[in-house]
Amino acid sequence: MEGEKQEKHHTKPIRCIVKLGGAAITCKNELEKINEENLVIVSSQLRQAMMPGWSPSMKVLGMDWSKRHGESEVSCNKDDFVDNANVGSSRFVVVHGAGSFGHFQASKSGVHKGGLDQSLVKAGFVATRISVTTLNLEVVRALAREGIPSIGMSPFSCGWSTYEKNIASADLAAVAKAIDSGFIPVLHGDAVLDELQGCTILSGDVIIRHLAAHLKPEYVVFLTDVLGVYDRPPIEPNAVLLREIAVGKDGKWSVVKPVLQNMDKQGVKTTAAAHDTTGGMETKIAEAAMIARLGIDVYIVKAATSHALRALSGELRGNIPDDWSGTVIRFVS
Amino acid sequence: MEGEKQEKHHTKPIRCIVKLGGAAITCKNELEKINEENLVIVSSQLRQAMMPGWSPSMKVLGMDWSKRHGESEVSCNKDDFVDNANVGSSRFVVVHGAGSFGHFQASKSGVHKGGLDQSLVKAGFVATRISVTTLNLEVVRALAREGIPSIGMSPFSCGWSTYEKNIASADLAAVAKAIDSGFIPVLHGDAVLDELQGCTILSGDVIIRHLAAHLKPEYVVFLTDVLGVYDRPPIEPNAVLLREIAVGKDGKWSVVKPVLQNMDKQGVKTTAAAHDTTGGMETKIAEAAMIARLGIDVYIVKAATSHALRALSGELRGNIPDDWSGTVIRFVS
Repeated sequence: MEGEKQEKHHTKPIRCIVKLGGAAITCKNELEKINEENLVIVSSQLRQAMMPGWSPSMKVLGMDWSKRHGESEVSCNKDDFVDNANVGSSRFVVVHGAGSFGHFQASKSGVHKGGLDQSLVKAGFVATRISVTTLNLEVVRALAREGIPSIGMSPFSCGWSTYEKNIASADLAAVAKAIDSGFIPVLHGDAVLDELQGCTILSGDVIIRHLAAHLKPEYVVFLTDVLGVYDRPPIEPNAVLLREIAVGKDGKWSVVKPVLQNMDKQGVKTTAAAHDTTGGMETKIAEAAMIARLGIDVYIVKAATSHALRALSGELRGNIPDDWSGTVIRFVS
Repeated sequence: MEGEKQEKHHTKPIRCIVKLGGAAITCKNELEKINEENLVIVSSQLRQAMMPGWSPSMKVLGMDWSKRHGESEVSCNKDDFVDNANVGSSRFVVVHGAGSFGHFQASKSGVHKGGLDQSLVKAGFVATRISVTTLNLEVVRALAREGIPSIGMSPFSCGWSTYEKNIASADLAAVAKAIDSGFIPVLHGDAVLDELQGCTILSGDVIIRHLAAHLKPEYVVFLTDVLGVYDRPPIEPNAVLLREIAVGKDGKWSVVKPVLQNMDKQGVKTTAAAHDTTGGMETKIAEAAMIARLGIDVYIVKAATSHALRALSGELRGNIPDDWSGTVIRFVS
């Protein structure tokens, strides 16, 4: 029957789910401004990680054929596509945060608190989606310019909804189908309907946890704007980078490396920026721990660095090299 | 189970499905250029049709709070939203065509012919979706600026797919849920997966027929760049506007008004522009006839005219005034 979803999920395993942190790809303190420099490097590193056969002597086959600003012709050379070897890519899923897109609109209207019957919330819901889908389109374009067959898939459009902020339904079949067809789905934190309170904000991190639980990737990478997880806000003078966090069967986590003294219960001090409607670092570690508990390695690493490229390439599976900077969160039975 | 769709469709009837023709909202001969002037008028007329209680003395509550080009602050005045009376809207669905967006990318790569294993087709699929979603975002923003709670819903993301170019699956539940929550879904012609040939182009007209069949709107309006359907290409000297087309139980249609002589079998000469990958006027009439056959009046009318506003407002139901210019296609038992 029409309207019913194919229940066949992915057949081959997913290699990696990667989160492009909002703070890493946007200028978080400047409204609706993309961090172009970072986004270009992140996209290039993703290409390198996804297409192991690619070498610098090969041409990047751009897939964004939009009219460039001020040019009358679109940028596409049909002859470049004679060789088919260059567009195969690994099975990745990309999820990005909102950064300086969406947060303002969501905060001002209280979308995360629900109440779609209020005109301000309803307008804010529309405004939030316009802002985050604007960012999504720019991320998809940046990836496509690097020859990554990226496909924007907005959670709201994909029928994702929540119940009391937990995911109530999500069209994973559509995501799996896109992957099976050779595309890289690009999802994002979004305003969605909530069955209890009318609407809410579904964060990229919650999306990642859900995707990880159902698509079972080999590893998950969070690209952020700092080196990894610290024991306190990284701008504080004595902040220590936590290199390895172990997660037990019960989901509880503890810092394994480095060995720390005088810590609070969970070993980490956190803050949440006032405008971050989806929670701060504490939420992120908790989400990461839930993924690690499934036996999936999680790497939290600074975007657009050599450390990020190594994490994306899967080089860290097994042993973590001493010269790698970042945080590994993994299951220890 | 997660991933399954709610099968509960709309509870209250849909008032109108409106197609914004690609030729009406874009400059069809200029690559990726929106017809801003038309789009503003079309959006304003849609607001007037959707919100019958609105009067010129009331403020338009804009829902696009994006940063304006060159401005540092987003445009949103929280205080405007004290009065709730102004954001209720009728149950409309908007579908738009591609016009000068997407067609170039689709034609150049042959997306409509399928073959996702070819690098050019795959790249063209990505490029086409980038182009049409760019237009979708601009349409959503234009509607939101008029206070219409518009929500972009990309068919590919919504899990729409085809089998031999006919719709194989479509997530109508997500569309119905958006309507039930008080939003105006905005869909568009899109590149989608085809179960037989890998991929194809799903036209806005086919989407409309499918939505009409399942959501049973009171009437359907096609906004085009000409007054309606003519007996030959409207640029030809003696082209005659067909005012009324009757559709019988068998789906066959004939021109009722004006009475024409010396016509070919179906009474209409048609041409299809070479770059129109989704068919020309013939396809459009055939699609309209299939909708009319369901007992749903179809009005084909020139966008951004007083005739369009009358059609959108539902004024034509029953008798067609003599001073109305456009084409009515309706069921005659």
